[in-house]
Amino acid sequence: MIKAGIVGGTGYTGVELLRLLAAHPEVELEVITSRSEEGLAVADMFPNLRGHVDLRFSVPDMAVLKACDVVFFATPNGIAMTMVAELLDAGVRVIDLAADFRIKDVQEWTRWYGMQHACADLVAEAVYGLPEVNREAIRNTRLLANPGCYPTAVQLGLLPLIEGGLVETANLIADAKSGVSGAGRQANVATLLGEASESLKAYAVPGHRHLPEIRQGLQQATAESIGLTFVPHLTPMIRGIHATCYATLKSAEVDLQAVFETRYANEPFVDVLPAGSHPETRSVRGANTCRIAIHRPQDGDIVVVLSVIDNLVKGAAGQAVHNMNIMFAFAEDSGLQGIPLIP
Amino acid sequence: MIKAGIVGGTGYTGVELLRLLAAHPEVELEVITSRSEEGLAVADMFPNLRGHVDLRFSVPDMAVLKACDVVFFATPNGIAMTMVAELLDAGVRVIDLAADFRIKDVQEWTRWYGMQHACADLVAEAVYGLPEVNREAIRNTRLLANPGCYPTAVQLGLLPLIEGGLVETANLIADAKSGVSGAGRQANVATLLGEASESLKAYAVPGHRHLPEIRQGLQQATAESIGLTFVPHLTPMIRGIHATCYATLKSAEVDLQAVFETRYANEPFVDVLPAGSHPETRSVRGANTCRIAIHRPQDGDIVVVLSVIDNLVKGAAGQAVHNMNIMFAFAEDSGLQGIPLIP
Amino acid sequence: MIKAGIVGGTGYTGVELLRLLAAHPEVELEVITSRSEEGLAVADMFPNLRGHVDLRFSVPDMAVLKACDVVFFATPNGIAMTMVAELLDAGVRVIDLAADFRIKDVQEWTRWYGMQHACADLVAEAVYGLPEVNREAIRNTRLLANPGCYPTAVQLGLLPLIEGGLVETANLIADAKSGVSGAGRQANVATLLGEASESLKAYAVPGHRHLPEIRQGLQQATAESIGLTFVPHLTPMIRGIHATCYATLKSAEVDLQAVFETRYANEPFVDVLPAGSHPETRSVRGANTCRIAIHRPQDGDIVVVLSVIDNLVKGAAGQAVHNMNIMFAFAEDSGLQGIPLIP
Amino acid sequence: MIKAGIVGGTGYTGVELLRLLAAHPEVELEVITSRSEEGLAVADMFPNLRGHVDLRFSVPDMAVLKACDVVFFATPNGIAMTMVAELLDAGVRVIDLAADFRIKDVQEWTRWYGMQHACADLVAEAVYGLPEVNREAIRNTRLLANPGCYPTAVQLGLLPLIEGGLVETANLIADAKSGVSGAGRQANVATLLGEASESLKAYAVPGHRHLPEIRQGLQQATAESIGLTFVPHLTPMIRGIHATCYATLKSAEVDLQAVFETRYANEPFVDVLPAGSHPETRSVRGANTCRIAIHRPQDGDIVVVLSVIDNLVKGAAGQAVHNMNIMFAFAEDSGLQGIPLIP
Repeated sequence: MIKAGIVGGTGYTGVELLRLLAAHPEVELEVITSRSEEGLAVADMFPNLRGHVDLRFSVPDMAVLKACDVVFFATPNGIAMTMVAELLDAGVRVIDLAADFRIKDVQEWTRWYGMQHACADLVAEAVYGLPEVNREAIRNTRLLANPGCYPTAVQLGLLPLIEGGLVETANLIADAKSGVSGAGRQANVATLLGEASESLKAYAVPGHRHLPEIRQGLQQATAESIGLTFVPHLTPMIRGIHATCYATLKSAEVDLQAVFETRYANEPFVDVLPAGSHPETRSVRGANTCRIAIHRPQDGDIVVVLSVIDNLVKGAAGQAVHNMNIMFAFAEDSGLQGIPLIP
Repeated sequence: MIKAGIVGGTGYTGVELLRLLAAHPEVELEVITSRSEEGLAVADMFPNLRGHVDLRFSVPDMAVLKACDVVFFATPNGIAMTMVAELLDAGVRVIDLAADFRIKDVQEWTRWYGMQHACADLVAEAVYGLPEVNREAIRNTRLLANPGCYPTAVQLGLLPLIEGGLVETANLIADAKSGVSGAGRQANVATLLGEASESLKAYAVPGHRHLPEIRQGLQQATAESIGLTFVPHLTPMIRGIHATCYATLKSAEVDLQAVFETRYANEPFVDVLPAGSHPETRSVRGANTCRIAIHRPQDGDIVVVLSVIDNLVKGAAGQAVHNMNIMFAFAEDSGLQGIPLIP
Repeated sequence: MIKAGIVGGTGYTGVELLRLLAAHPEVELEVITSRSEEGLAVADMFPNLRGHVDLRFSVPDMAVLKACDVVFFATPNGIAMTMVAELLDAGVRVIDLAADFRIKDVQEWTRWYGMQHACADLVAEAVYGLPEVNREAIRNTRLLANPGCYPTAVQLGLLPLIEGGLVETANLIADAKSGVSGAGRQANVATLLGEASESLKAYAVPGHRHLPEIRQGLQQATAESIGLTFVPHLTPMIRGIHATCYATLKSAEVDLQAVFETRYANEPFVDVLPAGSHPETRSVRGANTCRIAIHRPQDGDIVVVLSVIDNLVKGAAGQAVHNMNIMFAFAEDSGLQGIPLIP
Repeated sequence: MIKAGIVGGTGYTGVELLRLLAAHPEVELEVITSRSEEGLAVADMFPNLRGHVDLRFSVPDMAVLKACDVVFFATPNGIAMTMVAELLDAGVRVIDLAADFRIKDVQEWTRWYGMQHACADLVAEAVYGLPEVNREAIRNTRLLANPGCYPTAVQLGLLPLIEGGLVETANLIADAKSGVSGAGRQANVATLLGEASESLKAYAVPGHRHLPEIRQGLQQATAESIGLTFVPHLTPMIRGIHATCYATLKSAEVDLQAVFETRYANEPFVDVLPAGSHPETRSVRGANTCRIAIHRPQDGDIVVVLSVIDNLVKGAAGQAVHNMNIMFAFAEDSGLQGIPLIP
């Protein structure tokens, strides 16, 4: 049993982390912090946790956090970077679900996130927590940068093609569709049911913060230069991301299905569907699974990869728990065996 | 480990039963039958089960079913009654999730279900599987009639008032709202997303089949005559039932909150909320819990009970598993510890 | 052509009023005010109005408003009462879509709305704008209190029974279900799609502000004392109210269908459905119609009235336009002939 | 006033056509046919039409149809082609909302639609009813092939780029998202609310019937060879299509915003949004408008065009009415002035 703390647990990532950790056989939840909700029982904010989580939100207290084996940051961007150094010094391992440590190029990070980095020296040390790429590094890190939701779905869909040198890398396209929980739990007119239901729109077409993160991940897999167009869409559902990725094949002589099946053969949380499949986001609702299907329409030179995840699980809290499992040498699927809910 | 079979598993009750039994530590899933889908992998119909359930649908085979310790019927009404006797004779215990054995008055049953009963002699023996009422009888039965979804929510909401003689029984009202999964997974224009989304309607106001079932359950708790108006509504969501129950208090001198808390103090799956609460159906999504709140608006003589369940869990498959747990002396919450999903 | 102004048009009532008035053949939209959105083109906030409404939001300017023939208040409660007197003095007729002038008992109003009334002397003069009850008074008023959404659906459902002395008035029940647009367009966690979708809950069971309004309207129709239990529910759809009303008949010898058909025979916006019907909220989406069905389950002494409206049209902006039509002697259905959208 | 008939009006295209024609000032609805629903009042199937359409469904009767000025086919594919010749001979003008006359290459049509064409000789004569391309031909035709929903959204988004020779035509991508009403009103498990809500999936990636239709339309605008990847997605909403189109610019020196604004300057039903916009499907709900925005992310060589329509209006019934208006020299927006519904 390890002791876990959560800093900033009032958002959707927080409640999902609580759901997963509360049922995790190796974890004891010690503390969850929120300045604004101090004293409120977690179960009064999140009624699904009633009977499962007895904690109350408390003001962040470094002494309490330092007594944990692992601390998760489910905070807005820019908070973790101000607290991590002290925790690491105290021997605590840190998993940041925000974006503070995802981008290796600190100037690039500043450009997209609009703030100076408070501990740029730790960025290089941080490990990007996509287990399908960085498993060994994750095992030994004390500072884990948990990937974004879109980056998880898109990278898992495109990496086998790029690693294998199978596609042109200059004109990749990722058309991604997300449920509104990706926009968080803040009061916001744009994500009211009255605004976001029964409608669909693209957003941030000129540039979304997940673009540099995806580009960095893809670039690390190839010496060729990555050119990526990334268009996210807001869709009228709560959970789920569907990434539709388009790339141009260099050669027609390739068994794409075999490429993907081989690449992910030993991955517990990536499921390559049979040829001809069309994954549904609901097939992974509540689960840490990414399901992928590969198509080559009319046997042409365009490959279409369909990749679905639950944005709050494999795209956030579930992947964080997976990373924790690797970091602490637990079974990788410990606490992550729940079956998705259909219907 | 016991061996379990499912007859008729292609509906929503079936997939939910599969989800729960696949994760149940005491159960081995042996067989799931469907005449129409013979040979199809269960996971090809229900993609959430991919990686969790390897069975294929098979044509019902009595020899295979008789080798089970327990057989669940997730069939349309009128099927179980034709097969149960032979299974019971073979020593198999049966849990019927349909309505064949719920109504003790066979003539009344025939009136509401429009068919003759194929084994009326077994109706008397069958135990109505509302654990909060019939736990002891459930323990020893070989034939379990699993309650309907509306009847579960309404009875749990009204029984403490009736058992205690606290309300007039002649003019009870149950206004119930259900998600569309209650209407099943059959192809049907009325429950297309294009028809049922963004709309709400009452249905079956002249008389719904769950009315006699609820009335029977309430009547068993009192010598006074039960008069009940039951109005179900179809609402634009997938899962969930919210029953709003109205009754007239006989006396103002009663602590209703205490009555409910005492009544359900030892019930693992009934959660009486703090006074003043308003339960949300999502707070029980995917879980076997019924959450209840009690109100007395303006301190008048009308008591309003709010009762929510997941119609597919506490209202169907979860309650069936609970009943199985009792019948086989497993821990009552075995396989039923999953935490609801929010958001 | 008359000149119309709208004070406070950034909410859902405002945009619906704009949609209806922009297409009204007798109305010229002169001004729409909003302090917070000054200068913003209306069509930039409400993209459906692009190409139909060219106005920009402006700061309220009494001189401009006084030049109008009619001013609508689509403001939060408590605003209209501070501006109405001056407008009336200038000869402008006022339609308040908020609650400032709905409750005749000013003390009662203060109790429910939590503020002192700024012009209590005008309350008596104001006419409650339910055309099916007050048509003649509406014709001549200069100050119109437009009814609330729940009160419209419930009163139209219960009034024929009460006016006719057909039911016990002491224990009426109105169980009402509303889409989330009824909660307005303010940033609010509780009505985010991630919170309110795929769930259903009752709210304000101890007491909702529409209770005294409904009670007042019903009381005016009878000398007997009205006792009403009113329970509103939040449902996962954008538009629509479904009121399910329960009352106890005094006598079995009454043709309820005929009572309702006669009562509303000449009403252009109340549609009594054939016996046995179950109205759907979508059947009135976008239209100023109230559809009603009457049931007497099992021929007992409980009458169940089902009443559906679009909360933003017959429950707000459409009824306001209807009232304007009556006040200015336009055809009653002028600008209100749009056909509901299905699917 | 002209007399209009509808063959096959029990689907979503049918009800939308009825809604529009019932309110059209120049049209008298004479007859609507359905073999399966003979005798049923239209308003009993589509409750929104109650009080607006008094017709009943009748068995198709050639004599009655021949007495019409125009006959709309809102039938499944393959019906119109068996009846059109006789109607044309009788001097009736025909608008087919199905696909029988959309594809000029009859062999290609047979390949995608899986049937022999019953009147291939009329295919050449038929005019493809995209007014923004074929207005003059539409004016004089007696046989109008109304475009498909996806083809309308995608062609309007891509045509200005192709007509202007501005993009590579060999590797166009159209990633399209549709509400479920596009799948029709037939009983079908896949589009039940319980299946299609809260989920999103691509479908028909290997090849969708609208692919050859789009390709034909784009090919007619250029001498270069069109290569198009078209991926449709099913999304959890009732109405709306959002097409996200990707193309590679030949030159960076082009003002794309001006190109689109000029191209559609005189088009009443295409709205080019200001630079930087992201159209929402709800902004055209119920209206015959296509709204378009153009982006060039990071000023690169990929142009992204966002194009939204209501699939049942501009993508079906509304465009059919627009075509009728042109064919009969009515004002182009006659009967099409309704304002979209928000929220």
